[in-house]
Amino acid sequence: MSDPGSDPGALLTSAYRRFVVVVSGPSGAGKSSFVKVLLDQGPEFQYSVSATTRARRSHETDGRDYFFLTREEFTRRADAGEFVEWAHVHGEMYGTLRSQTDEALRQGKNVLLDVDVQGGKSVRKAYPDGVFIFVLPPTLEALETRLRGRGTDSEERIRLRLENARREIPMAREYDYAVVNDDLAAASHKVVSIVWAETCRSSRRLAG
Amino acid sequence: MSDPGSDPGALLTSAYRRFVVVVSGPSGAGKSSFVKVLLDQGPEFQYSVSATTRARRSHETDGRDYFFLTREEFTRRADAGEFVEWAHVHGEMYGTLRSQTDEALRQGKNVLLDVDVQGGKSVRKAYPDGVFIFVLPPTLEALETRLRGRGTDSEERIRLRLENARREIPMAREYDYAVVNDDLAAASHKVVSIVWAETCRSSRRLAG
Repeated sequence: MSDPGSDPGALLTSAYRRFVVVVSGPSGAGKSSFVKVLLDQGPEFQYSVSATTRARRSHETDGRDYFFLTREEFTRRADAGEFVEWAHVHGEMYGTLRSQTDEALRQGKNVLLDVDVQGGKSVRKAYPDGVFIFVLPPTLEALETRLRGRGTDSEERIRLRLENARREIPMAREYDYAVVNDDLAAASHKVVSIVWAETCRSSRRLAG
Repeated sequence: MSDPGSDPGALLTSAYRRFVVVVSGPSGAGKSSFVKVLLDQGPEFQYSVSATTRARRSHETDGRDYFFLTREEFTRRADAGEFVEWAHVHGEMYGTLRSQTDEALRQGKNVLLDVDVQGGKSVRKAYPDGVFIFVLPPTLEALETRLRGRGTDSEERIRLRLENARREIPMAREYDYAVVNDDLAAASHKVVSIVWAETCRSSRRLAG
């Protein structure tokens, strides 16, 4: 129909335009729990498989857990601008290939990315219509208690994580949403509400 | 504390900044159902009491159902810029007094407004950080069926409502969110998700 007002169906796209969801926040704030909750929302949510230079472990599959690249290939592709974001972590390189996120979006997936605040900035440049969620611990004391409770980190590593948290938390301003993880069920409900609300954005719903 | 990074508590406001929620959409699309669902979300949601020039009915209370104003007083206050929005409807004047919405926000309420697309534009000017939701029927045919099903409108009135719907629906673009009311439970869930997501906006959550 030529008149866009003649039928709401002509105004509405058949489905909302898919988007990337970035979850950032200090180590120990609960990012991975929220990513899991989002993946449970249905097949239109998909975790992005990262590329890395680190060695494949025996239980890992190339292309499912990571794309395992040599340092030379990673560097070449980074130089060629093939990464949405990438970073050095503990001497290895990790990154998100734009071909992966673009292909997932094209297949009707909302793509979940768990990246740090620097990575978040890069993703915002690549996908300005993405949804950017920053997860905060209720207090630094609570974060410290949680990190100690995991029992996996040395005293030095815990101190480093707390220092990083102190530096990262003010970056929450750069994100669309700030969710305080004081109670996992309540905070999960908020994160889920955010992504469903974002599927209703008129900019993603309406044609033209 | 002077260092904003020293404690997340110093960055987070004690509560999110309250906001107005505008629900617009064609007559028969289900606006009033969604307003009711939002009011059921808790005491921090409140419906805004409108002012009107129409006569008070016996069961109505001034200040609870409406603020009943004389035509002279309504006009005087409209000229003085005291209304967030106002309009002529069936020969009477209806409007939202800014003193009402400001006071409710100050008292920690999110203020719900059920206004037409012209009113929505005025509210956006007054409250640019408000949340603007447009409710759509799945199709014009479905809207017609619903209007006939109510059994309250004459054939002429139904035709007028459908004509208005045709004109209003393209205005959904001006709203933040577009919710298609194909299934009341699913659509209600979306509207509820939208307001909870909006309570997590970092611009409402973070100090400074």
